[in-house]
Amino acid sequence: MIAELSEALRHKEATCASLTRTALERIEEEQPRLNAFITVMADSAQARAVELDRELAAGRDRGPLHGIPVALKDLVHVRGVRTTGGSLVYKDYVAAETAEVARRLEEAGAVIVGKAGLHELAYGITSNNPHFGAIRNPRDVSRIPGGSSGGSGAAVAAGIVPMAIGTDTGGSIRIPASFCGCVGLKPTYGRVSKRGVLPLGYSLDHIGPLAATVDDAAITLDAIAGHDPHDPTTTRRPVEAYRPGAVTSLRGFRVGRPNQYYFDRLAPAVAARIARAFEVAAGLGAAIVPLELPDVEEWNATSRTILLAEASAALEPHLHRRDLFSVEALALFDQGRLLPATMYVQAQRARTMMLGALRGVWRQVDCFFTPATPTTAPLIGATTIEVGGAREDVRLVSTRFARAINLLGLPALALPCGTDAAGLPVGLQIVAPAFGERNLLRVGAALEVAVARG
Amino acid sequence: MIAELSEALRHKEATCASLTRTALERIEEEQPRLNAFITVMADSAQARAVELDRELAAGRDRGPLHGIPVALKDLVHVRGVRTTGGSLVYKDYVAAETAEVARRLEEAGAVIVGKAGLHELAYGITSNNPHFGAIRNPRDVSRIPGGSSGGSGAAVAAGIVPMAIGTDTGGSIRIPASFCGCVGLKPTYGRVSKRGVLPLGYSLDHIGPLAATVDDAAITLDAIAGHDPHDPTTTRRPVEAYRPGAVTSLRGFRVGRPNQYYFDRLAPAVAARIARAFEVAAGLGAAIVPLELPDVEEWNATSRTILLAEASAALEPHLHRRDLFSVEALALFDQGRLLPATMYVQAQRARTMMLGALRGVWRQVDCFFTPATPTTAPLIGATTIEVGGAREDVRLVSTRFARAINLLGLPALALPCGTDAAGLPVGLQIVAPAFGERNLLRVGAALEVAVARG
Repeated sequence: MIAELSEALRHKEATCASLTRTALERIEEEQPRLNAFITVMADSAQARAVELDRELAAGRDRGPLHGIPVALKDLVHVRGVRTTGGSLVYKDYVAAETAEVARRLEEAGAVIVGKAGLHELAYGITSNNPHFGAIRNPRDVSRIPGGSSGGSGAAVAAGIVPMAIGTDTGGSIRIPASFCGCVGLKPTYGRVSKRGVLPLGYSLDHIGPLAATVDDAAITLDAIAGHDPHDPTTTRRPVEAYRPGAVTSLRGFRVGRPNQYYFDRLAPAVAARIARAFEVAAGLGAAIVPLELPDVEEWNATSRTILLAEASAALEPHLHRRDLFSVEALALFDQGRLLPATMYVQAQRARTMMLGALRGVWRQVDCFFTPATPTTAPLIGATTIEVGGAREDVRLVSTRFARAINLLGLPALALPCGTDAAGLPVGLQIVAPAFGERNLLRVGAALEVAVARG
Repeated sequence: MIAELSEALRHKEATCASLTRTALERIEEEQPRLNAFITVMADSAQARAVELDRELAAGRDRGPLHGIPVALKDLVHVRGVRTTGGSLVYKDYVAAETAEVARRLEEAGAVIVGKAGLHELAYGITSNNPHFGAIRNPRDVSRIPGGSSGGSGAAVAAGIVPMAIGTDTGGSIRIPASFCGCVGLKPTYGRVSKRGVLPLGYSLDHIGPLAATVDDAAITLDAIAGHDPHDPTTTRRPVEAYRPGAVTSLRGFRVGRPNQYYFDRLAPAVAARIARAFEVAAGLGAAIVPLELPDVEEWNATSRTILLAEASAALEPHLHRRDLFSVEALALFDQGRLLPATMYVQAQRARTMMLGALRGVWRQVDCFFTPATPTTAPLIGATTIEVGGAREDVRLVSTRFARAINLLGLPALALPCGTDAAGLPVGLQIVAPAFGERNLLRVGAALEVAVARG
C-alpha cells in the first residue's frame, strides 16, 4: 500500500499534499462512525506535505515513506501537540520533545496527520475509553477494535492511513490488528526506541506499526528500528533491511505448531482459519514441526504480575488523584500497589528461567504460529465472551496468545487470515526468535499473498 | 604467588600433594585463631592432588592453577559436600551438582581444600556469624575480616591459600580484601557463571576471587570467566587473556578522581593512602582527571532497596522458620518482605537511568579510584565506627564505595595500598567500564608493584 502510494507520487498521479488532504478528509468522514482519533494535526500535516512536495520536486527523495500520511497512538509525544494517553491525567499535557519513533518517521518523510485514540493509559484491550468515548471497529461498529492501540487499528483498517504507530505491552498492537483485520508488528524488545512515549510496563512495552500490508510494516520498521543512545533499553545490534520483497516459497523454513491445548479453546472460525494457515505454509514448502511449549497461562500470569507492578510504579505520582481514573483502571493500579516486591522479583526470576527454556525451541523451528486472538472482535461493552463452550473474561481471552510474547520480548506479527461467517477478521500470530524480524516478515509476506488467494 | 607455586611444581621443588598438605596443615593451625573455614575437604583434596601429580608426571599440564590449593566461600556448591551458606537453613544441605565456577577451577587443575566461612547467608559485612562463630582478621584477631566473604579473605591474607572464591552483592569481595589486605576482584555482571551458587540478590550477585596478588586474581579470572549456557545472566561476549604481565607504565591511562565528597569522610590513614595512590598512578604516567560522579549515597540507597526485595524473594520459602535466622538477618528479610513492588520497580528504573548517566564517565576516563572502604577493619562486635568526626553504622560505612558498583554491574578491583599506624591494611578500589577487566588488572598490577615499593 505504501509502495503503491509512493509510486503514485513519483509518477505525479498524486502529491504529498493530496495524499495528506485525503487522509484528513477520511479522518473527518470516519470520526463520527469510528472515533479513531483524539487529535487531528491538519495544519502541521498540510504544511509538512507541501514542504515534502517541494523536496521531491527539487530531487530530494527520502524513500518509501516520503509524503505518506501516518498516525500515532496518542501515547507518542509530538513537540507542541498534546499527548493525552487516553487519560484525564494527561488531558492537557504537551511534550517539549518529539518521541524518537516519531522523529525517525518524520526524518523518513512521513506526514503525521493525527494522534489516534486508545484504551485509557493503554491499560486494557477494548479501547472503550470512558474519557474520550468508545472507539469502534470499522468492520462492524457494534464491536470493539481491540486495544490498547484501537484507534491505530481502526484508522488503518478503515483505510484512513496505511500505517499507524501503536504500542504493545500485553498484545496492544496485535489484538487490534487481529480484530480490525490489519497487520500488526511487535518488534523485539530493544529494537525500537521508546524515548518520548508514555510508559506503562517498562520491561514489557514495545513500539511498532499497525499497517495495511506486511511490506508497510517492514517499511516502517526500516525507518524506526535502531539504537537510541538516550534509550538504555535499545540494543546496539545492527538493523537489517526488513522489506521482504516477493516471497513465493517457504522451502527450508520450519514452522512450529504448538501443543494441542493452544488450539483447544478457540472460536470455531478461528480454529479453522489457523488450521488453514498451517496448510498454506506447508503448501509453500515450509516444514510444520510439532512443538512442545510451556502452558501459555503460566507465561501470562508472570507477565500480568510484572505489568501490575510496573504500571502502578509508572503512574504512582498521579494515583492520589483517584478522580482522574476510571474504576477499571483504578482497580488495576490498586492491585499493583498492593503487590509485594518479592512477588515481582519472583516473576522476573521466572521470566529469566522461561527465556532459558525457550532456547531449545529455536533449535527446532524458525518461527511458530498461534492464533493472534482466540475469537473475532467482541461486542462493545461485553465483559465476557463465549469461547470453547465456556464464558470467559474478554481481557483474559483476548490477551491469551499475545501477552506471553511481551514477557519473552520476542518479535511477533499479527496477520489477517480470512474471516468468520459474519465477515469479521481472524488474526494469525507468527512468533520468531529475538531479532528475527527479517525472517518473520518474509514468512508473513508469503502467507499474506497465499491467504489472500484463499 | 600462584605463578611462583606453579614454577616450584614444575621445577620439582614441590608437588601438588605437598602444596595441598601444607594448605591443609595451615587450615588446622589457623582454625582456632581465625575460624576461617566451615568445612575442610582434606580427603578429596589429597586424592585430587595425587591425581594431579600423576598428570604432571605424564606430561599433562593444565596451566597455572594445576595443583594449586584454593578455597571456596561456603555458598558455592561442590557435589557431595555440604554448603551451609553460613546459615542454619542450609546446615545439612548437600548439593547434587558442583557449581560452574568450582567445576571450571577443577578443570583448570585447582585443588579445593575447603569451604570458607562467611556472614550468615552472605547478608552482611562483619562475618560475625552467630551459627558458626565469628571469623577473625589475620592482621588483628580482635577485628572483623569484613564480609560477607570473610573466611575467603582471612584464608588468603593468612597465607593458607593463594586464592579463595568469594561472592559480592554489595561489597562482599572487596570489603574483606580491604580489611584483610589482599586483592579482591568483582568482575562485570554476566562475566562469571553463578550456577550452583546460593543466590542473595539476583541482579546484584557477582562471583570472583580474593587473592594474594593481582596476577593471582587474573589467573583465576582466566579460568572462571565465560558464557554458561545454563546461566542466562552470563554474556556471550568473548573472554580475554586477563594476566597483566609486568606493567611498568600507565602512560595513556586516564584515572578519574571523583568529587571531593567521595574523600570527605575517611579515616585519616585511608585518606592519606588513597591520595598517595593517585600520586603513584601519576608517577607511572597516568593522567589524573577530576570526575563528577553522582552522590554515591543515592546509588547505595537504590542498591539497598533492590537487595532487600531480591534477598527476601530468594529466601522466602524458608522465612516461616524464624528460629533458623539471626535477629539481624530476620530484620533485613522482614524489611524486604514489606517492600511494595512499585518501589522495587522504581529502584530498577533509577538504576537504568544511572547506567545511562554513567556512559559520559567512560568518555572522560579509563577507570576511577575510590577507597575500597572508608576505614580499616573495625573491632569484632562494633556496630558503629567513628569516621570523619561522626559515629556511623559499620555496615553503611563499610559498603559506602562498594555497594554502588554492584548496582552498576561494573568490574572493580580492591587492592592493598599500605597500612594505618596500627598496621591495618588500607584498600584502594579501582573501577572500570563493563567488561574492562583486562585494563583494570593492568592498572592494578602497575600500582601493586609501585605501592609495594612505597
